[in-house]
Amino acid sequence: KLADEAAEKKKKSTYKLGGRVHLDSWNFLESDPGINFLETGDYDDDPENRWDFRRIRLELEGTVPNNMLYRIQIDFNNPSAAEMKDVYVGWNNLPYNQTLLLGNQKRPIGLDHLNSSRHNVFAERPLAVETFNEDARRPGIGMYGYTDDELLHWRYGAFLLENISTDGRVRGDYTEGGLYGRLSSSPWYDDISGGRGYLHLALAGSLNQTDGDGNLDLDDNNNEARFRTRPEARSDSRWWNTNRILGANHYQQLAYEFMLNVGAFQLTSEYFGNWVQRDPLGGFNGDDLFFHGGYVFASYFLTGEHIPYDRKTGTIGRVKPFENFFLVDRCCGGTGTGLGAFAVALRYDYLTLSDSDIRGGTGHSITAGLNWYWTAYSKVQTNLIWGTIENAGQGQSNSGPDDTTVPLASGVGGDYAILGMRFMIDF
Amino acid sequence: KLADEAAEKKKKSTYKLGGRVHLDSWNFLESDPGINFLETGDYDDDPENRWDFRRIRLELEGTVPNNMLYRIQIDFNNPSAAEMKDVYVGWNNLPYNQTLLLGNQKRPIGLDHLNSSRHNVFAERPLAVETFNEDARRPGIGMYGYTDDELLHWRYGAFLLENISTDGRVRGDYTEGGLYGRLSSSPWYDDISGGRGYLHLALAGSLNQTDGDGNLDLDDNNNEARFRTRPEARSDSRWWNTNRILGANHYQQLAYEFMLNVGAFQLTSEYFGNWVQRDPLGGFNGDDLFFHGGYVFASYFLTGEHIPYDRKTGTIGRVKPFENFFLVDRCCGGTGTGLGAFAVALRYDYLTLSDSDIRGGTGHSITAGLNWYWTAYSKVQTNLIWGTIENAGQGQSNSGPDDTTVPLASGVGGDYAILGMRFMIDF
Amino acid sequence: KLADEAAEKKKKSTYKLGGRVHLDSWNFLESDPGINFLETGDYDDDPENRWDFRRIRLELEGTVPNNMLYRIQIDFNNPSAAEMKDVYVGWNNLPYNQTLLLGNQKRPIGLDHLNSSRHNVFAERPLAVETFNEDARRPGIGMYGYTDDELLHWRYGAFLLENISTDGRVRGDYTEGGLYGRLSSSPWYDDISGGRGYLHLALAGSLNQTDGDGNLDLDDNNNEARFRTRPEARSDSRWWNTNRILGANHYQQLAYEFMLNVGAFQLTSEYFGNWVQRDPLGGFNGDDLFFHGGYVFASYFLTGEHIPYDRKTGTIGRVKPFENFFLVDRCCGGTGTGLGAFAVALRYDYLTLSDSDIRGGTGHSITAGLNWYWTAYSKVQTNLIWGTIENAGQGQSNSGPDDTTVPLASGVGGDYAILGMRFMIDF
Repeated sequence: KLADEAAEKKKKSTYKLGGRVHLDSWNFLESDPGINFLETGDYDDDPENRWDFRRIRLELEGTVPNNMLYRIQIDFNNPSAAEMKDVYVGWNNLPYNQTLLLGNQKRPIGLDHLNSSRHNVFAERPLAVETFNEDARRPGIGMYGYTDDELLHWRYGAFLLENISTDGRVRGDYTEGGLYGRLSSSPWYDDISGGRGYLHLALAGSLNQTDGDGNLDLDDNNNEARFRTRPEARSDSRWWNTNRILGANHYQQLAYEFMLNVGAFQLTSEYFGNWVQRDPLGGFNGDDLFFHGGYVFASYFLTGEHIPYDRKTGTIGRVKPFENFFLVDRCCGGTGTGLGAFAVALRYDYLTLSDSDIRGGTGHSITAGLNWYWTAYSKVQTNLIWGTIENAGQGQSNSGPDDTTVPLASGVGGDYAILGMRFMIDF
Repeated sequence: KLADEAAEKKKKSTYKLGGRVHLDSWNFLESDPGINFLETGDYDDDPENRWDFRRIRLELEGTVPNNMLYRIQIDFNNPSAAEMKDVYVGWNNLPYNQTLLLGNQKRPIGLDHLNSSRHNVFAERPLAVETFNEDARRPGIGMYGYTDDELLHWRYGAFLLENISTDGRVRGDYTEGGLYGRLSSSPWYDDISGGRGYLHLALAGSLNQTDGDGNLDLDDNNNEARFRTRPEARSDSRWWNTNRILGANHYQQLAYEFMLNVGAFQLTSEYFGNWVQRDPLGGFNGDDLFFHGGYVFASYFLTGEHIPYDRKTGTIGRVKPFENFFLVDRCCGGTGTGLGAFAVALRYDYLTLSDSDIRGGTGHSITAGLNWYWTAYSKVQTNLIWGTIENAGQGQSNSGPDDTTVPLASGVGGDYAILGMRFMIDF
Repeated sequence: KLADEAAEKKKKSTYKLGGRVHLDSWNFLESDPGINFLETGDYDDDPENRWDFRRIRLELEGTVPNNMLYRIQIDFNNPSAAEMKDVYVGWNNLPYNQTLLLGNQKRPIGLDHLNSSRHNVFAERPLAVETFNEDARRPGIGMYGYTDDELLHWRYGAFLLENISTDGRVRGDYTEGGLYGRLSSSPWYDDISGGRGYLHLALAGSLNQTDGDGNLDLDDNNNEARFRTRPEARSDSRWWNTNRILGANHYQQLAYEFMLNVGAFQLTSEYFGNWVQRDPLGGFNGDDLFFHGGYVFASYFLTGEHIPYDRKTGTIGRVKPFENFFLVDRCCGGTGTGLGAFAVALRYDYLTLSDSDIRGGTGHSITAGLNWYWTAYSKVQTNLIWGTIENAGQGQSNSGPDDTTVPLASGVGGDYAILGMRFMIDF
């Protein structure tokens, strides 16, 4: 009879609704004139303080008989111009615990990008992670799997390089695409303590083909050989920015992940290398380029919780406080209060996007974080960021033909300090 | 065992989906040339008749363990440019029956704004209510509570003044904010008849700080000292409109609510006073300003129903017709028909936004309403509006530096008549 | 007790959530210079290849006690500019099995438009269907019903002619509207085989009033006497296009539907005639116009399934494969695989929008289709299209006053070949 019921169940499609709200406050405490220029194009006009809904995301996911699945995720943080996030269909329960997804999904490179924004330790992702996998999601096809003992997890796929989050479409006669792969392993995972101890290691890489002549010809492709990122805060402009690199026809990436967790303590690090090849174009023969960056952070729960790890996906999971904040339970007669969970964290970032004639910026930054977990579903993150950047400005240079960039005579740079808070809930 | 189940339930987040559809037809029966100018900027081009989806709203609300809640409301009436309405997270079950909300929510001033658009007696809100709390919702933090005997209800909070309904973000180095509070009471509430008789009284007020120099300096803040409203119908322009008042750095508001319900009859009135202070700017030293307005309406159910009142929030609730319209119930063999419920209502409005050199408009209007309730969830409202406005036109004047307004030599005005219908459902 | 429960149920509003994802790839294999001009305005710039999310649609529908219903459908295929599809409220269970709907809904003309995009045999709709009922949905009021023996189905209504899918509003003092009706019948329906055999016949027609002077006067109405369509593929421009026909004040339509299904085989055909009357305007006295078009297709399931028919709506339904694709069911110990269902189809289309001075295009096309049904809810469609068009170009001509079209000295045209794939799922 149970089998009958299960069979019946399989004949209907299902759905699950979810969502998240992230509300940010960002204060640009200090900024040198060079930073002002990178943000606004004016040395005297400093970055504006702001309150943003960073994410107002609705998710609908489910299954279709017999072993298909779908997921639609729309973000209304800017309600008059919504964005698509995950939008895919696929098959699960394939041999070797595999799942195949077709549609808009995260490219498998960069641990901090594969982690959900609901679970990450810092409010914004590291410089190198954002730079070398900007906005993470692209339309493509991806395979995900793991070994039965959960020691190994892999994901690989082929993706188009155009970011379709706002318009849902790729246009152009030239196919800009990439092959991506990531292999992760958790050689140590302490099952007995419920996963309070583990070691995660991973290698990822990509091979990409881009349209170096961009808008110079008749096809509609923009040149996707562009690397850029904000200063780990929601500025208007990307301060590190190579702009679209004229003549760049290929690039390759290699990335390394390390994550060690011992109880309430975690140490995490990633490193990215990125190689770009340029062909002669318009009388200019640019050298091949090498950009790279990475980060290391340590985090510690003052209240003793730990960051869970999901061996099947090679990413972190939801932190569960031992005690919730503001627990007021009056239905049983008494009134209780709780403090929630507290964690501190410190991150060091390095990124250079300046090489040869390209002045995309070289710099590093320190982020101090304090996370106050109200419940397993809600928390407030406070991040204080000090950074410095040199030899930047390529992103403010669009004076070439058809908006292509031109070599800059000299770079700009400066120091900055930013204070951010994020209030977040998910369901 | 039940306790176990309840405890289990508490560990999961929940959601509830809802929505509403409001479809409007507006006919501008008559308009003097001055009205045409206020609408289109052209004395000969009269307001266009229209069919609008006024609201296509989806709502997702729920709880997160243990005592947190969230609400996301997106309006797709203009689907290519959606708007956010309520988007907040919070805690309920706080001491003294209180709830604390963080996010985009209604500022606590103006009964007719705090009432849901699903329940209001007239299709559009009174002139003074819309003017002095334009679009109601702002990002902020608010506390809501009531006494155990439900005699008193209060809500107060701090809000940013920028309207973020279309873009979800506040930008600017100058903090334009306000403190708002409302205390309401229902000294008479006839429990025995199920709330067919009650008296509601309330006082509300606000203290606001605005950026009087607006776009004249480098920060991104617009001057939020602007008061304006449409003619209780969906015109394209706001006919009463002070525009952004140059040099206005502060304003304060005081509002009074009165609502008496005796069975099928209701009498409601509100009054608002608004004081604005200006600092000298650009060689112009404007006087302090006083704007004010109010309304009174009477409504009566021909079919005998009444407008319910919610003592815990100090607002009105859902009308339940004694008999639904078009009840065709064939499953039990018979066929029945019903008429639904009918109510008539008459409203008088007064508003002056003209003081000193500011010609924002002075006028009054009469609204005759006929509501036909099909079910508790659906109705059609018909409103006929006659109005007059004088000494207006400030809103069509943007010739100062950086789009600031300049004094007008003389005001414009005229009479108008508008017929509107709204078909509405909610679920 | 069951009656009590049913009664209880009736007192609450209900909802059902659904959706669909369609992901397209379109390759413009060949295009003559004239086709390039129709697409881009440049004889040398050919249509761009593309990947599009064609539909990312969320649907919320339900009932409100006692016999009301609602439906809200938003499409996020272009997430920063969503579109509304069905948005209506109504009553069902009316006498004679009728349902009355008020809001945005499909105009009842053209079988292929009334069929859901989830079920249609070809990826894009026929030339004539798209042309003479562009985007199908308009705001209006419609009645739907059928006889008790399900032999006859009818739908008729009154609609405004402005397409409100992106902005949700009709503006203008001139009422552009139409009366539409469709009567369909299934004189043969083989109940015994579960509907594997049937014959569907239908007649539909419309009477429309348009604003021939369009933007030449002060009202905001655009002239809705415009007929146009893409080449059964998602090009950027509509290659058949009369543009807004200056002076056209009325048009009438007559359409015929034929559908014969015998097991795995189906033969379907439609024909449309469209008459336009013009009044003299701006010194130009255009002749009355006649446009027409139609199609015929044959489809056959290699794996033996059939296309179901819904007699109550006079449209086709969901195909259920005998065997799903990639059925991997490991919970019961074994592993199974399935192939899914396969169907082939061939369509011939004809459309002429050229008459008198209007060069809207005359042409025909052949579409070869291969459908691979993975499950009842998902499939991939492959379409190969060869077409030719002559005497077109009116749509690229906007040089008259206020963007009105002017007579062209000569038409353009050419041949094209397009390959498309659509991956689709719904739930």
